[in-house]
Amino acid sequence: MLVKKLKERFEELDGKEIMLQGWVRTNRNSKKLGFIELNDGTTFSNVQIVYLDDLDNYKEVSKITLGSAIEVKGIVKVTPEGKQPFEIQASSIDVLGASDHDYPLQKKRHSFEYMREIPHVRPRANTYYAMFRLRSVLSMAIHRFFQDRGFVYVHTPEITGNDAEGAGEVFTVTTRCDGKYEEDFFQKHAQLTVSGQLHVEPFALTYRNVYTFGPTFRAENSNTTRHASEFWMIEPEMAFADLSDDMDVIEDMIKYCIRYVLENASEEMAFFEKMIDHDCITRVKKVADSKFERMSYTEAIEHLKAAKDQFENQDIFWGMDLQSEHERYLCEQVVKGPVFLTDYPKEIKAFYMRLNDDGKTVAACDLLVPYVGELVGGSQREERYDLLVSRMQEMGMELEGLQWYLDLRRFGGCKHSGFGLGFDRMLMYLSGVQNIRDVQPYPRTPRNLIF
Amino acid sequence: MLVKKLKERFEELDGKEIMLQGWVRTNRNSKKLGFIELNDGTTFSNVQIVYLDDLDNYKEVSKITLGSAIEVKGIVKVTPEGKQPFEIQASSIDVLGASDHDYPLQKKRHSFEYMREIPHVRPRANTYYAMFRLRSVLSMAIHRFFQDRGFVYVHTPEITGNDAEGAGEVFTVTTRCDGKYEEDFFQKHAQLTVSGQLHVEPFALTYRNVYTFGPTFRAENSNTTRHASEFWMIEPEMAFADLSDDMDVIEDMIKYCIRYVLENASEEMAFFEKMIDHDCITRVKKVADSKFERMSYTEAIEHLKAAKDQFENQDIFWGMDLQSEHERYLCEQVVKGPVFLTDYPKEIKAFYMRLNDDGKTVAACDLLVPYVGELVGGSQREERYDLLVSRMQEMGMELEGLQWYLDLRRFGGCKHSGFGLGFDRMLMYLSGVQNIRDVQPYPRTPRNLIF
Repeated sequence: MLVKKLKERFEELDGKEIMLQGWVRTNRNSKKLGFIELNDGTTFSNVQIVYLDDLDNYKEVSKITLGSAIEVKGIVKVTPEGKQPFEIQASSIDVLGASDHDYPLQKKRHSFEYMREIPHVRPRANTYYAMFRLRSVLSMAIHRFFQDRGFVYVHTPEITGNDAEGAGEVFTVTTRCDGKYEEDFFQKHAQLTVSGQLHVEPFALTYRNVYTFGPTFRAENSNTTRHASEFWMIEPEMAFADLSDDMDVIEDMIKYCIRYVLENASEEMAFFEKMIDHDCITRVKKVADSKFERMSYTEAIEHLKAAKDQFENQDIFWGMDLQSEHERYLCEQVVKGPVFLTDYPKEIKAFYMRLNDDGKTVAACDLLVPYVGELVGGSQREERYDLLVSRMQEMGMELEGLQWYLDLRRFGGCKHSGFGLGFDRMLMYLSGVQNIRDVQPYPRTPRNLIF
Repeated sequence: MLVKKLKERFEELDGKEIMLQGWVRTNRNSKKLGFIELNDGTTFSNVQIVYLDDLDNYKEVSKITLGSAIEVKGIVKVTPEGKQPFEIQASSIDVLGASDHDYPLQKKRHSFEYMREIPHVRPRANTYYAMFRLRSVLSMAIHRFFQDRGFVYVHTPEITGNDAEGAGEVFTVTTRCDGKYEEDFFQKHAQLTVSGQLHVEPFALTYRNVYTFGPTFRAENSNTTRHASEFWMIEPEMAFADLSDDMDVIEDMIKYCIRYVLENASEEMAFFEKMIDHDCITRVKKVADSKFERMSYTEAIEHLKAAKDQFENQDIFWGMDLQSEHERYLCEQVVKGPVFLTDYPKEIKAFYMRLNDDGKTVAACDLLVPYVGELVGGSQREERYDLLVSRMQEMGMELEGLQWYLDLRRFGGCKHSGFGLGFDRMLMYLSGVQNIRDVQPYPRTPRNLIF
């Protein structure tokens, strides 16, 4: 029986015999009596197994090591007076797979750094055990949100020949080691995608509402707590939608995700609140209940100028790229809640964003939230062929490789908008976990590739 | 208003004015009257727009080209006598984005080969339009099936340092062009994953039931209709499960997916039945209603020997790798339905499969289905450390890089099983589409990398 089912039905099972399989989280005992905390992977919390010296193999059982896989038969006993609502009184306990003396997890608390060296074992430690289920639950929240609203899920490619995007450093994909790409597998230079956006736009111009959810890659040599070389992105794209529609969807999505994980990963979120970030449930609930404000970049700069004394970077001017301290000030001090900054100077944004009538700013938005700053970035896309060409030329981009992308503007192109959500950063935001290496099953960062 | 909503509510909207946006699929007209078939991406079938010469811009409207984006205001009119249950009588039609004279889709039927050159436009052609929605619907079927059963979704890595798996040719991931991998981004050789299975096993030994669903890669230089260099795989893995449990889950999953797409992509499946494969709905329904048989490889060889005259490859012997014609004969002629072949000779299967007591075969299964042959491959994994080590040595594998994988057998390892489903092949199976290049948004194959 799965522990999840047992927990749902323990009252009606009182006095009945059941069989459980799982892994030993603790085993303590005296000469006559022992307790095993068993976890079978189906719920965050353990089940208590009580065993007595009437077991044939009591001596063996009393020595079962942490992490061992066991099979337990026993009677369910409801314990209204106990710390847990029920326990299992064992009639037999068999070891299915022992854990050796060099099992890397012991009862003491291990450092995050130590854990990152053992990605094959750390999912069994509480923080990771909670995190990787949260990861699964949040994935499903994303899919449900978009599918319930009729969005079509598109698998944009991981390998691409688009060299032109210019979103930082990229990984080359090759079967050679001499750089002769014209003789390579694809007969040209191939790289790992940095974003699915350009590839998904044709699908928005077909299905109206679409989204991607898949891996993306950056070969940036930056060792920060927020950057990984491989990470998952969600990139929705909507035809006939302007920037305001875009922000409506972002707001709905964030609120939906928060409510979904609070409901479907409640034990995990309670763990994070207790052990990682004492404010995390309150914090995200507040966001789910807020109206997200909207403020232009230009207005934001005025606020920052007025408060510049409190920043490390005090050189505040129109045209600057905001830093984390500025973003956090705006949402935490000025708005005191989530805020969309809109209409950024075109110079600090991507080539495909729609030029506003002022000729200086583009129809972009960044969602800033208390505690982390930027969580989502979006924009209305430039649907006007000539303006898009001029912007690309202005930025010194080669048009040839992106002619197909330009052509979308000649083939029934229309107003459209979209955004990108870094899935791993959303997990950090929800849990309060501070390092992206601790929200990914096998993090890949510069000079770090374990297994 | 979205066409999907309109179709659900057209009766109550009879006589009301509505606004639609979408793309023109056909536009035909006389001097006084015109008809536009409009599609807004939310349903497979179009909406008929009727317009009269009382429109101010009748002349302009009558010239609107295929593929143009338009906005229509008009009155819903229920037409019980018509081919379609309702139509829209236009009061205004505005062009949002015209389609140029060189728009690559015209009313005639284009070849698959032509379409593969224009992946940015082909989603608008019926076959692809049906396919890429089916792709989205089937993705959701997979997620729902596993999440409803408590399986945890794991994002196994795309970039891996495991050189040892030996599943054919791999792509190198690099930021250099001189092959000096020790000075490379990860300070060692990195490659794109060929399977998430080894990486997901630690999670099954934590959460009991888990699954992956993500891209995988093969650098094989094989130009067939069934191989792509990038494709999506589903790899579930279950602790405390033997081969029989594994087959139970495979059978449930396949049946669930079939029923889900018949219900949620009914227009698309009807299109495939009409235009691509006149038997596809009957065929997959029959599978959903069948009991999947189970037959040992050894028994299968006897059946094949008895019928060897009808094969191209008539050299039938115990130990051979079955070919497609053999697999199809077994399910189509012998069993007349889906069948699991089990217990294959160890020499033709992967190193991690569990050795049976006969010492010759392993606890593997392939699901064969009529029309395509093999659809799913699975196995119970070798959980016995010593036996796994001997098998790897027998096969000449280096143990060092996979010591972590071996160690799982020392750290509370237990009986576990899993399988792999090629997502793209499942789409081919459901739709009857014959080439993997026509089920993927941007197919990547040798010497072929478009955009």
